[in-house]
Amino acid sequence: MKEVRVSLIGYGVVGHGVVDVLNRKRDMLKDLGLNLMLTSITDHTGTITIDDGIDVDKILRERTLANVATSSMKGKEAIAAIDSELVVEVTPTNIIHGQPGLDHMEAALSGRKHVVTSNKGPLVVAYSRLKKLAKDNGVMLKFEATVGGTMPLISLVERTLTGNTIFGIRGVFNGTCNYILTRMAEENIPYSHALSEAQDMGIAEADPSLDVEGVDTAGKVVILANALFDLNIKYNDVDVTGITGVTPEALSLAKNRGYAVKLIGDVPALTVRPTLVPIGSPINVAGTLNSAAIYTDLSGTITVTGLGAGSIETASAILSDIISIYRTKRLNA
Amino acid sequence: MKEVRVSLIGYGVVGHGVVDVLNRKRDMLKDLGLNLMLTSITDHTGTITIDDGIDVDKILRERTLANVATSSMKGKEAIAAIDSELVVEVTPTNIIHGQPGLDHMEAALSGRKHVVTSNKGPLVVAYSRLKKLAKDNGVMLKFEATVGGTMPLISLVERTLTGNTIFGIRGVFNGTCNYILTRMAEENIPYSHALSEAQDMGIAEADPSLDVEGVDTAGKVVILANALFDLNIKYNDVDVTGITGVTPEALSLAKNRGYAVKLIGDVPALTVRPTLVPIGSPINVAGTLNSAAIYTDLSGTITVTGLGAGSIETASAILSDIISIYRTKRLNA
Repeated sequence: MKEVRVSLIGYGVVGHGVVDVLNRKRDMLKDLGLNLMLTSITDHTGTITIDDGIDVDKILRERTLANVATSSMKGKEAIAAIDSELVVEVTPTNIIHGQPGLDHMEAALSGRKHVVTSNKGPLVVAYSRLKKLAKDNGVMLKFEATVGGTMPLISLVERTLTGNTIFGIRGVFNGTCNYILTRMAEENIPYSHALSEAQDMGIAEADPSLDVEGVDTAGKVVILANALFDLNIKYNDVDVTGITGVTPEALSLAKNRGYAVKLIGDVPALTVRPTLVPIGSPINVAGTLNSAAIYTDLSGTITVTGLGAGSIETASAILSDIISIYRTKRLNA
Repeated sequence: MKEVRVSLIGYGVVGHGVVDVLNRKRDMLKDLGLNLMLTSITDHTGTITIDDGIDVDKILRERTLANVATSSMKGKEAIAAIDSELVVEVTPTNIIHGQPGLDHMEAALSGRKHVVTSNKGPLVVAYSRLKKLAKDNGVMLKFEATVGGTMPLISLVERTLTGNTIFGIRGVFNGTCNYILTRMAEENIPYSHALSEAQDMGIAEADPSLDVEGVDTAGKVVILANALFDLNIKYNDVDVTGITGVTPEALSLAKNRGYAVKLIGDVPALTVRPTLVPIGSPINVAGTLNSAAIYTDLSGTITVTGLGAGSIETASAILSDIISIYRTKRLNA
């Protein structure tokens, strides 16, 4: 049985999902030969150290750690002080400067701890630097949860399509935009109405600009390009157009000719823009689904679809990354 | 660098693809730390031993080994005699008695050789026995290529969705049936016309019964049920209805109500039958594509689609299995 001490940094929606999933999957993980021990949780209010007797359900009912923290340690300080070999980093993302996640990841990797994250910002800002830091310290940096939510894209390419050369990846990487475009086409309503509906349903945020302007999708394009195509690009290398200019008339015209309009991210073209997709295409998914077509030399085109977001779904991608760290041999290491 | 001596049993369409792919991917595999050496090829006419100087392109131009064999050894005898640690078994499938593949796999596993195969028959007939034989001999039996062609289904569940409980898998597992149903719906033509067209195009065989009666799909249901749901079922446990009774009128009626009719295999329901699928569903794929929806506890529904068949595509699935044998640690071994 491989014992792994895990510390969690960030206790928002995804953090709660991680605690819940690690707790629920304890026995299944032991069957795989992995004893994952959640050693600590840290948020912006402090740190709680977890030991065997602790009531996980009680912690899950707390929105922050303010009432249960056992120490005032935060961020880098907590990462350095806590005895763990793997850090799950799920603080809020910032795609411009990458903080506070960037500091957290640098502290963890420098301290020879593996990092598993759903936080796009640090990877968009400093992918190459973080990857090098991981390599120099003999640990791994895994980030399946940053792209496509529950849709297993990075691991599908790295673990399952190994042997293939990947020519390109195109897909729907933002569930909010896809929901808005789907509703506009279904009901023949303008953008503003579909946006309001999405906000009422909690699918779009009060300030939806990161989603609807294509910023979130472009961040995912940066991550895919750097991780799977070995490029070294930044956010500004992506040509981005969002969905705010799409009209119901354009959607209706497209539909009559057998097409849907989707916000498509394309690697290695490095574009994000509303794009005509044949209605019968497997990447033409509805609602909040994400999709990706992977173009390969041997396997042809493989398409995968799945839910774009969700607390448990994101935690599931994080769990899959954790397991892969301990199951994958590095033959050429 | 891990050196692996591979022997290939079967030299039909898939066997040619395997030789081609191993040859083309030699450098890429070395980058992964794997030196795969194709040591021998065996078919019903004999065996050719491969050494460094050999002209692979010349062998690829031969339809059988009759003109190039260096030995008259066949089947079990060849497997026992040849020094290799991994056998790729790609002889023609027989879903009733599993031969000759079943004998080949038993010989290989008993001789402590890993087996990678695209041959459904032996797995449908004797999955549990073969799996136990592999375990008892400390080797692996891998068969991604038996289900869904290039669509990475088994490895997706085992390697990427690890941590999830899988509730069920439903999908389109036979490209020939899917082509016929797609053309019937598109052109409003009867089954017999669409079948003739598929035969003219080489998509359906002269005797199409294994495909159109649902036998092939049912074999895949048996393999998925045994491999991913830990059941121990046989072909007769599956309730099978093929597509020969589907009429263009039924397809047209379904279409008007927003549905397509697809031949759907369902695990663990253990059914194969023409089924109504919403037109917008990700498993509603056209032409010879295959698709599978995987229902999970944490990740929701993940759908994957890909080409159903093809020599290089099948060889690609075989290559992915070979790589996984040497990259995956068994933590609880």
